[in-house]
Amino acid sequence: MLLFLSFGSVACAQNKILVFQSDFGLKDGAVSAMKGVAMGVSTDLKLFDLTHEIPAYNIWEAAYRLVQTVPYYPAGTVFVSVVDPGVGTERKSVVLKTKTGQFIVTPDNGTLTLVAEELGMAGLRQIDEAINRRSNSGQSYTFHGRDVYAYTGARLASGTITFEQVGAALPLAVVTIPYQKAVLENGKLKGNIAILDVQYGNVWTNISQQLLKKAGIKYGDVLLLSVFHNGKQVYQGDMPFLETFGAVATGKPLAYFNSLMQLSFALNQGSFANTYKVGSGQEWSVTVSQNR
Amino acid sequence: MLLFLSFGSVACAQNKILVFQSDFGLKDGAVSAMKGVAMGVSTDLKLFDLTHEIPAYNIWEAAYRLVQTVPYYPAGTVFVSVVDPGVGTERKSVVLKTKTGQFIVTPDNGTLTLVAEELGMAGLRQIDEAINRRSNSGQSYTFHGRDVYAYTGARLASGTITFEQVGAALPLAVVTIPYQKAVLENGKLKGNIAILDVQYGNVWTNISQQLLKKAGIKYGDVLLLSVFHNGKQVYQGDMPFLETFGAVATGKPLAYFNSLMQLSFALNQGSFANTYKVGSGQEWSVTVSQNR
Amino acid sequence: MLLFLSFGSVACAQNKILVFQSDFGLKDGAVSAMKGVAMGVSTDLKLFDLTHEIPAYNIWEAAYRLVQTVPYYPAGTVFVSVVDPGVGTERKSVVLKTKTGQFIVTPDNGTLTLVAEELGMAGLRQIDEAINRRSNSGQSYTFHGRDVYAYTGARLASGTITFEQVGAALPLAVVTIPYQKAVLENGKLKGNIAILDVQYGNVWTNISQQLLKKAGIKYGDVLLLSVFHNGKQVYQGDMPFLETFGAVATGKPLAYFNSLMQLSFALNQGSFANTYKVGSGQEWSVTVSQNR
Repeated sequence: MLLFLSFGSVACAQNKILVFQSDFGLKDGAVSAMKGVAMGVSTDLKLFDLTHEIPAYNIWEAAYRLVQTVPYYPAGTVFVSVVDPGVGTERKSVVLKTKTGQFIVTPDNGTLTLVAEELGMAGLRQIDEAINRRSNSGQSYTFHGRDVYAYTGARLASGTITFEQVGAALPLAVVTIPYQKAVLENGKLKGNIAILDVQYGNVWTNISQQLLKKAGIKYGDVLLLSVFHNGKQVYQGDMPFLETFGAVATGKPLAYFNSLMQLSFALNQGSFANTYKVGSGQEWSVTVSQNR
Repeated sequence: MLLFLSFGSVACAQNKILVFQSDFGLKDGAVSAMKGVAMGVSTDLKLFDLTHEIPAYNIWEAAYRLVQTVPYYPAGTVFVSVVDPGVGTERKSVVLKTKTGQFIVTPDNGTLTLVAEELGMAGLRQIDEAINRRSNSGQSYTFHGRDVYAYTGARLASGTITFEQVGAALPLAVVTIPYQKAVLENGKLKGNIAILDVQYGNVWTNISQQLLKKAGIKYGDVLLLSVFHNGKQVYQGDMPFLETFGAVATGKPLAYFNSLMQLSFALNQGSFANTYKVGSGQEWSVTVSQNR
Repeated sequence: MLLFLSFGSVACAQNKILVFQSDFGLKDGAVSAMKGVAMGVSTDLKLFDLTHEIPAYNIWEAAYRLVQTVPYYPAGTVFVSVVDPGVGTERKSVVLKTKTGQFIVTPDNGTLTLVAEELGMAGLRQIDEAINRRSNSGQSYTFHGRDVYAYTGARLASGTITFEQVGAALPLAVVTIPYQKAVLENGKLKGNIAILDVQYGNVWTNISQQLLKKAGIKYGDVLLLSVFHNGKQVYQGDMPFLETFGAVATGKPLAYFNSLMQLSFALNQGSFANTYKVGSGQEWSVTVSQNR
């Protein structure tokens, strides 16, 4: 009990919470094996999942899911993210400590792009596999997720090792994926389609509430949206900017703020993404302006 | 330890178990963010999932999954169910306490139809969002699941608040979805198709063991089943009423009791629902009689 | 705390970890109800999932997922596996204790084939349903997963009962599925396709690192692979045997060791299984030789 109280008093100490993300899916035993390894480190750990349905090798989406979710966990939480098309080739295995106090264990392949930008970097260390690798796993070249990332994440989350004991400190610079930043130019907003809300087919941009306010846009305005794929326009249309879905008829488009307070587009009870064949990631961008 | 013992002695006190249901799917971070918020309330909570694969906006199925599952958890368990097509419009956010001692945190939009009917209502309170809303979430209009329901559920499950501290007491009446009740009329059973056992394609009705006994039907009898969609017959056929699937040939129909002891229909190792294009919910009904 | 320490000192004592596997999927409440029953036995249990996406009635795959995953959990962990096409017919309900100290609660229908072979059998007991069955469940003939297997697994994992209290000891012989064992004959390796790595479409055989070494095959060699379905050849081709995927061009085939150190085949960033319509299980076999 005293232990817990003392944890509470140091904002960034590990809190025994370990959250997994991957592109492994849930049809085989890979995710479960990672959890078994974590339980072998400490049965005090509390294990959760972010998602394991990242499309195979999609580092952009791994980056986005992290920045969408990490801030809702308490400081001290450790995330393990394994989307690793380069497994077996040269890429560093690292742990990032964010300025908000969470830790992310991952290959440094672009996965940290958005977390580093939005939450800030308080520390970055390269995993020393001489110490932080499951024993008797030396022969296995292909499951770093289990033998290095899950194992190191569990040791860090449980307090078996400190952040410093992960390995040598690195300069505060991670591998990043280039994409259209959100900007206001000549009264027109530009941004990228950060992600699709896949369950509902809604389109989420990286344009913030602050930027919208700066552009003078407010609830009730009608917006003109253009969507581009690799610079080529694939959709253009008008829609109201509203607080609630229920305020337009079923099947009609609207603009709204998603739960991250970023500008998003939807069809009420329909799929904007499927209807207009819109995707997400670094190749997708939008412009938005008031339609007067 | 004393705390746990004292919980054990009061049947309906909260037991730190929190179970989530939604139509969010598991492809993004929404479910995980709800769990992060819960961990921020108390790391002592034990978090589980009912399902997150409720078809989008399908309140009937949310209602059914609850009544199918809630009774198997100990009294004191708190459920958070977020299937909410009316988010942002007028619908109350409530917590129902069942007569069996579980709690359900949900929008009052029909989700409580079957739990209220079958488990009974011991109390109903409207969530006071002035108190029971995540701090700094006031600007977010669209993710009540995380900021109100998960947060309130975690506070209730952990004992941070009592049931009374959820908010003002409401009359014991919830919004309900109309459907064909199970009845025996002139020797013929009528009921609705409550749900499909989607994994296997079995058809589950709301006709109970007691009602079947009242109709004089027993194992070994041959039953005549008619299936109706919005009142129009879409299937009619004979099948034996049996204790075990193995007692008919592969691909052959049978009637049986599902794990809730309600009359159900299946093809042995096949899909009755797919083969005969049968669905479930308030639009689907059946009649059943002995074929002599 | 003393309790935990004493657990630690007896390698095979139960450790309160309970892991579920089934072919139920996650769309309904079946898995959640099993967890509710387990919580009703003891709220101290730590509940995990292996997978619930075993294809319906596929006992071979259930057997494979177990042997792939069980060894990564600490000794004392209890697994509940429910893939049970014969529910309601004659098959024993058993608990196997492996020589590595884990327990598996399952119908004895072939599910234990690979675990028994590879981890060894330290004990086998038939579940005495007079004791180890959820109370008030006597009328339900169809959900043994919840009322017998989950309940018994929870009682065993929590230490409510000992392994001996599961029921009477059986001879150390389980029901097994026949399949092509891995062998080296006249310089040619034979084996079966144990499983597909479904997320990526990779093909995993049961041919071990030791057997490959015995055949004189080493990294950099070019292998000739033939794939057979029920004895009929469906694929033949050359590919390099490599340590890392990144060493071949995108879309090109390679042979590698999977995380279980068994010979596997893949297309770099593609699906070998989909491209060449290759499946897995007892009907699928391969031959492998060096292509000089």
